[in-house]
Amino acid sequence: MSAIGLPKTWNEQADVVVVGSGFAGLAAAIAAKNVGSSVLILGKMKACGGNSIVSDGCIAAASSTLQRKNGVQDSPELLHEDMLRAGFINHHELVRTVAERSNAVVQWTADYLGVKYRERLEQLGGHSVPRTYITYNQSGRDIVRPLLSKVKELGIEVRTRVYLNKLIIDADGSIKGVKVHEGYIFPDAESGSPKYIKARNAVILATGGYGNDIPFRAIQNPRLTEDVDSTNKPGTTAEALIEAMKVGAASVHLSWIQMGPWTSPDEKGTGVGPIFASLIAFPYGVVVDPATGRRFINELADRRIRADAILNIGKPCIAIADADGVIQSGQNIHRCLKKGVVRRFDTMEELATAYKIPHEKLKETVSRYNSYVANQKDEEFEKPILKGSKPLVHPPYYGIRLWPKVHYTMGGILINTKAQVINLCYQPIKRLYAAGEVTGGVHGACRLGSLAIADCLVFGRIAGMNAAAEKPWI
Amino acid sequence: MSAIGLPKTWNEQADVVVVGSGFAGLAAAIAAKNVGSSVLILGKMKACGGNSIVSDGCIAAASSTLQRKNGVQDSPELLHEDMLRAGFINHHELVRTVAERSNAVVQWTADYLGVKYRERLEQLGGHSVPRTYITYNQSGRDIVRPLLSKVKELGIEVRTRVYLNKLIIDADGSIKGVKVHEGYIFPDAESGSPKYIKARNAVILATGGYGNDIPFRAIQNPRLTEDVDSTNKPGTTAEALIEAMKVGAASVHLSWIQMGPWTSPDEKGTGVGPIFASLIAFPYGVVVDPATGRRFINELADRRIRADAILNIGKPCIAIADADGVIQSGQNIHRCLKKGVVRRFDTMEELATAYKIPHEKLKETVSRYNSYVANQKDEEFEKPILKGSKPLVHPPYYGIRLWPKVHYTMGGILINTKAQVINLCYQPIKRLYAAGEVTGGVHGACRLGSLAIADCLVFGRIAGMNAAAEKPWI
Repeated sequence: MSAIGLPKTWNEQADVVVVGSGFAGLAAAIAAKNVGSSVLILGKMKACGGNSIVSDGCIAAASSTLQRKNGVQDSPELLHEDMLRAGFINHHELVRTVAERSNAVVQWTADYLGVKYRERLEQLGGHSVPRTYITYNQSGRDIVRPLLSKVKELGIEVRTRVYLNKLIIDADGSIKGVKVHEGYIFPDAESGSPKYIKARNAVILATGGYGNDIPFRAIQNPRLTEDVDSTNKPGTTAEALIEAMKVGAASVHLSWIQMGPWTSPDEKGTGVGPIFASLIAFPYGVVVDPATGRRFINELADRRIRADAILNIGKPCIAIADADGVIQSGQNIHRCLKKGVVRRFDTMEELATAYKIPHEKLKETVSRYNSYVANQKDEEFEKPILKGSKPLVHPPYYGIRLWPKVHYTMGGILINTKAQVINLCYQPIKRLYAAGEVTGGVHGACRLGSLAIADCLVFGRIAGMNAAAEKPWI
Repeated sequence: MSAIGLPKTWNEQADVVVVGSGFAGLAAAIAAKNVGSSVLILGKMKACGGNSIVSDGCIAAASSTLQRKNGVQDSPELLHEDMLRAGFINHHELVRTVAERSNAVVQWTADYLGVKYRERLEQLGGHSVPRTYITYNQSGRDIVRPLLSKVKELGIEVRTRVYLNKLIIDADGSIKGVKVHEGYIFPDAESGSPKYIKARNAVILATGGYGNDIPFRAIQNPRLTEDVDSTNKPGTTAEALIEAMKVGAASVHLSWIQMGPWTSPDEKGTGVGPIFASLIAFPYGVVVDPATGRRFINELADRRIRADAILNIGKPCIAIADADGVIQSGQNIHRCLKKGVVRRFDTMEELATAYKIPHEKLKETVSRYNSYVANQKDEEFEKPILKGSKPLVHPPYYGIRLWPKVHYTMGGILINTKAQVINLCYQPIKRLYAAGEVTGGVHGACRLGSLAIADCLVFGRIAGMNAAAEKPWI
């Protein structure tokens, strides 16, 4: 093992050292600073924000003001139930923690950080009710920027290009600081100069997932070779998770890697696929197998069910919406059409021809779906027919090819509800906390859409407060 | 971390120290001894044989003599394909190693150990062809005993009640021996006296799965609480796997825990369920949901698909066979009837009444199934209609209630095709080998029936030979 002991001299120190500068890390830093700790944030890339800045800005809240305003019945218990239905091997107490605090954390972003949300709630796949807020520009940046402003306002230092080389563990089994490489240039693990930073209270790991770590993810799922695209930023890799395991952290659910069902093979990375598919076509349109022209899935099932269904048909499926669907969604379709990934057709026949779908079959499928909309009941796949849904009859029609990409890694470090890292003997590792995608257990086998930000902010804040409450060792 | 360095004095030594006394450990010990190493086998329980002695004695071989005799077309490639279809996240190169050596290893047990097999091959769920040998008494003991005889004949010492407390890792990252507790009494980790045993060449971990380790398995799958029964022996726990992780071993697929689809809630542990369901009712009968009287699954699908389908209906299903099925199976039904777990009925109506199945629906189901047998094609679930299958018309009829139990843990230590243990930096840990259920990757998300023994013996022998070939460090 390559765990290392205390250095002879420390180069610098802080009460709380936060590794990672995305949602979880920034929330943790703010929480720790606000209860009086000195805090240092370390990010490995050139810019702050990690993978969070490419997030879609969707965040779920159970029992929110907006739900009450719209007469939507919801509760933390129902959110808990939805998360367990999708994830089935989630750690219940972690799920409960996120579900119970989801509304408060959205309020915190609005009231304390000044994050602006749209006035409508979305119902994403796997959720029983509309409960998802979307930031004004539909982007994680809308939350990362206010977090960074607050960090600056509070006088917390954020240092970039700092790579976590080792967690420094003492003979008593507690974490005393970190060895880093300053001036690191991704992805060269040998770049930069070594430096030892003492953490008087604790270290918080908020280093994100491993969706773009090809060797690491391919061990857990050998199908996810370099040929499989990802929606994640390049820096979404596993080094810090591995360092945590080297000091004895237990891991959980590492082989559960989420494929997004709303990505297109006709563009790199995330692109416009998720906006069109997730917010327009899935709720207000249909998805068909081009070979048969038939639907094959509840378009609002959870991500795992939908992605597996697409992978099972073995080739890209086609998601379709009409002009009414676009209106109902409140989305700007022009953004989606720009790069030719979403295409516009004057008739359903033209759409069928373009995607090589048997036209008669597609007509039948759409007409059957329209009858479900009229009767408010999907008799084939039990898709919930959302308020405002209309039959697919108003041109223009829009289509996209969909094929899953690696989006999120459910597995990670085992934590408890205090965000303490748990070791292989089922005990907390002293002075080590973790939050966000680097942890596992909250989402089990399948994370629902709009629960990553909630998870990161809830557990980031818990980690920050608990780290600040540790008694300094020196 | 609790990894420990070298002791001041070693209490004893051997070239190769094998931890575990089941299929993998015994095969490893024999292989190492046969190339000239001194070998010591350490078992933690009172008796040798581990969980292997409760195995069903089924072992798959691709391209076997018995297949050629019966005109069955098979190949290592086809077995490889079957394993990947079921497991989908298996490590291909490990699968290939088992598939290519499966026939040779069965021959080795017959020729070298004198294991006696029945003259017929079974086709178990998920296999494309009949390729499974069964030992004469349908028990793992039929292989464990000859292995132990050979161990004795070769003069290898087997010591029981010896608990692995620590793997001893040197500053150069190589494993130099083990700290054990001699006189250990399961499950008291503090019992026995500490002893240091030097391994001049290498240590081989062959300590089995964690199917009965409630805290460990419940972290990976919180549904598997103590209320969920297991077919495994009490000693099937994770301590050695955890010790390997403490010295830096990478783990893989830990959250994939197999539920056997052929166990009955009307008996503890394994019982007679697997014999009746797996060898009689699944191949030659039907499985129905008692609420509907309908089949709901290909009775010869892989274990994961079948167990998930039963869990999905939410209550025990009923497996049914008739007198002809029993004859076709070549099984002794009286063994199954003894404890009242399998029940005998003179008419299908009596069976329906006993299990509260709507009789008319069941009659329809059976008659539809009989037409599939007549046409050699299951039009609903694509179950392969086996040679010798007959319509279900000959009383008496037999039934059993089935509900899944924890049977096998696919996850474990990451190894390469040399059976070397791989660490978190993707490098072999020097002088540390592993084989059998303690390892992960061979079976991916779902182990097919009759591939555990093949895996254990193939990788046990590889580990033994490679450990023996290491250059002694002293």
